Amino acid sequence: MKVSREGWQWTPSSGLKAGLPSIGVIEPTQNFQSVNETFDVVVIGAGYTGLTAARDTSTNGLNTLLLEGRDRIGGRTWSSNIEGYPYEIGGTWVHWFQPHVYRELSRYGLNEELVHSTDFTHKRNFFSFETGTGRREMSHEEEDELFSRAIEKFVNVDGNLGRTVMPFPFNAHWNKDVLQYSNLSVADRIAQISHDLSSDEQHAIEAFVLLCSGGTRENSAFLDFLRWWAAGNYNYKTLLDTIITFKLKCGQSGFAIKFFKEALATGNFSYAFNKTVSRVDFSSGIVQVQTVDGQSFQAKRLICTVPLNVLSKVQFSPALDRAKQEAATLRHVNQCVKIHAEIQDPDMRSWSGVTYPNNGLVIGLADGRTPAGTTHCVFFGCNANLHGDEDITKTLKAVKRFAPMDVERLVFHNWSKDEFAEGAWVWYRPGMETKYLKALRKRQGPVLFANSDWASGGWRSFIDGAIQSGTEAAKLVRDELKSGLRCCRL
Amino acid sequence: MKVSREGWQWTPSSGLKAGLPSIGVIEPTQNFQSVNETFDVVVIGAGYTGLTAARDTSTNGLNTLLLEGRDRIGGRTWSSNIEGYPYEIGGTWVHWFQPHVYRELSRYGLNEELVHSTDFTHKRNFFSFETGTGRREMSHEEEDELFSRAIEKFVNVDGNLGRTVMPFPFNAHWNKDVLQYSNLSVADRIAQISHDLSSDEQHAIEAFVLLCSGGTRENSAFLDFLRWWAAGNYNYKTLLDTIITFKLKCGQSGFAIKFFKEALATGNFSYAFNKTVSRVDFSSGIVQVQTVDGQSFQAKRLICTVPLNVLSKVQFSPALDRAKQEAATLRHVNQCVKIHAEIQDPDMRSWSGVTYPNNGLVIGLADGRTPAGTTHCVFFGCNANLHGDEDITKTLKAVKRFAPMDVERLVFHNWSKDEFAEGAWVWYRPGMETKYLKALRKRQGPVLFANSDWASGGWRSFIDGAIQSGTEAAKLVRDELKSGLRCCRL
Repeated sequence: MKVSREGWQWTPSSGLKAGLPSIGVIEPTQNFQSVNETFDVVVIGAGYTGLTAARDTSTNGLNTLLLEGRDRIGGRTWSSNIEGYPYEIGGTWVHWFQPHVYRELSRYGLNEELVHSTDFTHKRNFFSFETGTGRREMSHEEEDELFSRAIEKFVNVDGNLGRTVMPFPFNAHWNKDVLQYSNLSVADRIAQISHDLSSDEQHAIEAFVLLCSGGTRENSAFLDFLRWWAAGNYNYKTLLDTIITFKLKCGQSGFAIKFFKEALATGNFSYAFNKTVSRVDFSSGIVQVQTVDGQSFQAKRLICTVPLNVLSKVQFSPALDRAKQEAATLRHVNQCVKIHAEIQDPDMRSWSGVTYPNNGLVIGLADGRTPAGTTHCVFFGCNANLHGDEDITKTLKAVKRFAPMDVERLVFHNWSKDEFAEGAWVWYRPGMETKYLKALRKRQGPVLFANSDWASGGWRSFIDGAIQSGTEAAKLVRDELKSGLRCCRL
Repeated sequence: MKVSREGWQWTPSSGLKAGLPSIGVIEPTQNFQSVNETFDVVVIGAGYTGLTAARDTSTNGLNTLLLEGRDRIGGRTWSSNIEGYPYEIGGTWVHWFQPHVYRELSRYGLNEELVHSTDFTHKRNFFSFETGTGRREMSHEEEDELFSRAIEKFVNVDGNLGRTVMPFPFNAHWNKDVLQYSNLSVADRIAQISHDLSSDEQHAIEAFVLLCSGGTRENSAFLDFLRWWAAGNYNYKTLLDTIITFKLKCGQSGFAIKFFKEALATGNFSYAFNKTVSRVDFSSGIVQVQTVDGQSFQAKRLICTVPLNVLSKVQFSPALDRAKQEAATLRHVNQCVKIHAEIQDPDMRSWSGVTYPNNGLVIGLADGRTPAGTTHCVFFGCNANLHGDEDITKTLKAVKRFAPMDVERLVFHNWSKDEFAEGAWVWYRPGMETKYLKALRKRQGPVLFANSDWASGGWRSFIDGAIQSGTEAAKLVRDELKSGLRCCRL
């Protein structure tokens, strides 16, 4: 198994070690000799957006070059394959209610790879809830009832659970009334309803919403949550089903590699990994792309999938639109911490829990069973407040605070320090969506900007939004470059 | 506006007239001169399956010929554009929970074309319910409560509303326990629960399920309904949202034409309408396709999208597999009647109703508002028991039985008599799915069989299943024909 330089693994015997094995690591790292040709399109970034775009342009006959700074495909979504089990270092869950990602899963024949993260058939079948007022256990039914009741209060701005103000999550501003919530933070919304919240309900809302935003109550926009809720059909159970229930037996990298292989099979597809782009010059009409190691590539079109939080690291000439510059300087708030733990006790398979607000990790849940029969649990924190590589002792302590457990392995990546992401899935600050979303999607001449961070659909932030965004960009480029071939008009 | 020879229109002043205007009618009817070349692929049928397949093969560089017996695109899904309003003659509703269709809508930028069929803001805001015991009115909330309660009883075979026996609707036989319901008819299932059903509940189940199946209690399989239910996330409201709530302002033909135009723009795409295929000979390796007007075409691969109920009209050599022959002889049961009515009263916009079992039409609902300000209502019957072209007086009477209304126009097509469909969306007889589904999907040499009638996904029967099926077939053909181009292997 090839090993990525990214990520960390800790075991009691070997301690903390950098680098994780992954089938997403690509060798050879590039597949071309000469760089003197003018490509039809250069795609920057091999996350799902870039993979989708490059696959679509290459299968549609465009000569395509994919440049990626990492040693692997997948961007913020990749799996580490350890002892026959895929740990999802970033994006994980999918559902047939996420149209763009499910269409691709289905097209690659991966329907039968879907497995449940949850399995409530084992002994330790309960939810542990530790808040400021102590720790207690409840059934998963009681957990769902509490969270559902609390979240419904949170989103119920219109007396219709959000259906009135956001009837079309994939066209979220259709009802302009929704814009009145543009500047609302999670904290603001909680303040509006605090008279109607029990202490448990407030803890439930905060733990769940911060799991979603990866930020703080103050810096996380309410509107992003309302859209997730609407996309999950205005129902807590459906939302859980869509965002945190179904994952892939083959791991996300086993899915992502399908896009890469399909592109490769066209014969139109060149790629280079470990190629960090430093500069994009499109002042002449043709796009010139320079990498930090001094290479230069040129193309008729560029699809730039660089995420929001690192977009300002690339120097554009002419410069990025002012609005893009402002948004890239503001950055989004998601500094999620995600820690995988291999737990000795097989009965933990049915467990989940919250420790909030007094722990570095907020939510934990059983996520699978390893081939060795141990339980795989995953823990989430927010606001970068406990990255495992920075303090492994504190991390182990935070994990064990959820429940007594024997930890045999930890697996994680520090997304906040990740030079190509500086954060996790997008979550805007209050006001950002209304002010910058459209601007972030706007092309500049031959340069298209595509990323789940500013996808137009209901599942912005998700793999679904990435694929949507890559699909749209590829179609636009193809339509433009192939228009000379049009044989007739209807 | 071009006029299709299909469908019927009735108005008080002009009476019954054959043919309906549609933007889906294609002129010129063919775009090539010579037929002597060997195409990479011939696609039979310009429904969504064939349109998707032909678009994908042509954009992927394969020389593609699309043959269609009708004068229009869309197959069992097309709209008639009358006085600025699209009447959906066949398939209508879509949702972002239907991954394949929504991916396409989104890719073509049609997100903003979604509109609600329902609008409960007008005066006649009620549900009328006529059963053997009389007619009464209730609120839509009472309607939903009744139908939800009744349908939950109907599907609750496992005490978990179907989630246990069918956890993956897109992989419906994953839990083999579900196969115990293979031979169950709708009537059988009702018999199992009849001790627990009120008269209203039983009428609600039968009206709703027959709306879905287009057949009878006795000939409609229970398993198809269970899959629809699972695909709708095991919830009546979500099921309604997904299958009968959101439609397209531009009409389905406005969507379908996008596929056709994209294919046309490649320069690899030939087509011929009014070309009914009579014979397919693939005994020599190359596929020979003959049409009833004596033309012959040849291709390396054939994607046959001929629906189940007319599959036996095409002569194959070598012959179709025995299982396919049996299924094509048995036929599916859906003989749905769909009648559009333009109603004078604008306040009918909020109405819906059931008349069952004593009327030729079972369910009616307001479906839109025409530019003239009248209300568009749509009525469904089952089992071919009231086709409008056969008895317009009886049809008008059946419409007016739901509620007093002034009918200004009727628009419909006789799907049972349609030579290229002989029925509506697929609904299997008890036992058919388990016995024939896999066989229907099986290729025979260079001939692939693709159709929503045997799509593997959760939305078989739907536009979604058609697009899924066409996508899969095109990918397979492309992979095979382009494999010589593979430059390297991973």
